[in-house]
Amino acid sequence: MNLKNILVAGINEELFQKHLPIDDFHNFRFIPIDEISAEDLTWADVYVGSKPCPGFNLTDIKWVHSFNAGVNNYLELDGWEENDVLLTRTICSFGERISEYCLSYVLKDLQYHTYFEANQREKKWAQITPKMVKNQTIVIFGTGEIGQAVAEAFDQLGATVYGVSQSGKQKAYFKEVTKTTAASPLIERADWVISTLPLTKETDQLFNYELFSHFKSTAFINVGRGSTVDETALIEGLNTEKIRYAVLDVVSTEPLPKNSPLWERDDIVITPHISAVTDLNEAISCFIDTLKKIENNEELSNKVDFVKGY
Amino acid sequence: MNLKNILVAGINEELFQKHLPIDDFHNFRFIPIDEISAEDLTWADVYVGSKPCPGFNLTDIKWVHSFNAGVNNYLELDGWEENDVLLTRTICSFGERISEYCLSYVLKDLQYHTYFEANQREKKWAQITPKMVKNQTIVIFGTGEIGQAVAEAFDQLGATVYGVSQSGKQKAYFKEVTKTTAASPLIERADWVISTLPLTKETDQLFNYELFSHFKSTAFINVGRGSTVDETALIEGLNTEKIRYAVLDVVSTEPLPKNSPLWERDDIVITPHISAVTDLNEAISCFIDTLKKIENNEELSNKVDFVKGY
Repeated sequence: MNLKNILVAGINEELFQKHLPIDDFHNFRFIPIDEISAEDLTWADVYVGSKPCPGFNLTDIKWVHSFNAGVNNYLELDGWEENDVLLTRTICSFGERISEYCLSYVLKDLQYHTYFEANQREKKWAQITPKMVKNQTIVIFGTGEIGQAVAEAFDQLGATVYGVSQSGKQKAYFKEVTKTTAASPLIERADWVISTLPLTKETDQLFNYELFSHFKSTAFINVGRGSTVDETALIEGLNTEKIRYAVLDVVSTEPLPKNSPLWERDDIVITPHISAVTDLNEAISCFIDTLKKIENNEELSNKVDFVKGY
Repeated sequence: MNLKNILVAGINEELFQKHLPIDDFHNFRFIPIDEISAEDLTWADVYVGSKPCPGFNLTDIKWVHSFNAGVNNYLELDGWEENDVLLTRTICSFGERISEYCLSYVLKDLQYHTYFEANQREKKWAQITPKMVKNQTIVIFGTGEIGQAVAEAFDQLGATVYGVSQSGKQKAYFKEVTKTTAASPLIERADWVISTLPLTKETDQLFNYELFSHFKSTAFINVGRGSTVDETALIEGLNTEKIRYAVLDVVSTEPLPKNSPLWERDDIVITPHISAVTDLNEAISCFIDTLKKIENNEELSNKVDFVKGY
């Protein structure tokens, strides 16, 4: 693949250059995303950015590299397969990042942070024994790189970790992986359900009334994509105490609108999609690494499968 | 050692009995700690409890088993060596428990929980990238079972972990262990200093003005004993921003008096000595396990060294 002209959308040129090996083979254009012209797109062999620019098309591009792990914004465009365009995504330390995010909120709960904070405000010394991770059963939706990293982190602390995936294929760090269609018995045993799912046709609104009906005072963490959850069903689940507590790093509409009922609940934690914010240095390294692999005809672990959607 | 008569101070008999193997060799008395008589103490070969009862003496006892990890309350009594009394302590999952406590507060900070909570109250969607454990340098005072368990937990997440101990002996999970007297260069590099130290003559008020003077906007976690810290020096360290943030599970006087200045600070988290609260089931198992080992002449990992004081 001849990848001579590289168009970088809206990324700090100086920072980018620091990571680039000096070579004469590649030409770069660094352009703010809203200022990219049709001519730029015709010129470019490669498009690098966190989302498609206005007027984006796949006619002349050979490779698109997303600065995010989720690529649903790119997949909304048609013509990837027809135009034979390669799409890759950033993986880097997303797994580690998301693991630490999940771990932090599980531990916040097991260690009763909120209870002790309230007591400190009242100068109250009242003991309660924290729960241990090893006594928790955790069901993770999505057993790809991110789901596996989350599983590994909890497995290391002795939790019982199950996985749910489309294929039901067994993977390391999971005591057992089942298919999505057979997940209810696992969900019924879970203390925590963690979703790392990408947004695809199959996962859109997967967490609906039916699925939440199997929760038994279970905590729910969503670090996948907001639209995998029916938010009305989520609120109903909390109201009926099937869901004990929800930690949402992703929501259907981001930023979350001021009038959303999700903001004001004590049983919901909202964070602004930061569990896997791309560290720019890392993202650029990942891009350069992918570029080298393509040019050396090496296998890519971050190539998007258009059928699976991730 | 003939350990026939076992006196258990203030522990629920029913719960205890559930764990006891049925045998004819041991006689038990379960007595509330304030009701133990001189006759009970004369009768007993073994004393089991979280602290010495009023009028406690070592004349007739052969073995004392503490339900805590810290035994400074027992060591205040004289005559252990003269009377050749064995003292053992509860270890069980203290290491795991304290690790999870420390991990929870490090992650709370790195993941900006407080910041996002405040934003949620204002319905504000503002991204900030969490920091990762792997970029943290952590110096742990105390490299015994508990210190090592804490080191292991942070090492698994990629942190750089150093240890400080009296001997300076190298141990697993620590990149390096130095002697207490040579700790300043390590402290100056630390993002976090975690103390797991027991209270001994050497550690009493160890965290004083001099030691805190080497902190450079460093966070401090104390899961050891409160009296290892000069609390006036701690407050001064926070005021001068040498200490960025303190998490105290132990304090000099427990429960912490209402008029203590420690309660009201935003840069201090107070928890009521719960990082290693003994789970009674576990503590009883530990006692029975120790009993068996003594009777089988096996080596004890939880025997207190009267010179070291733990």
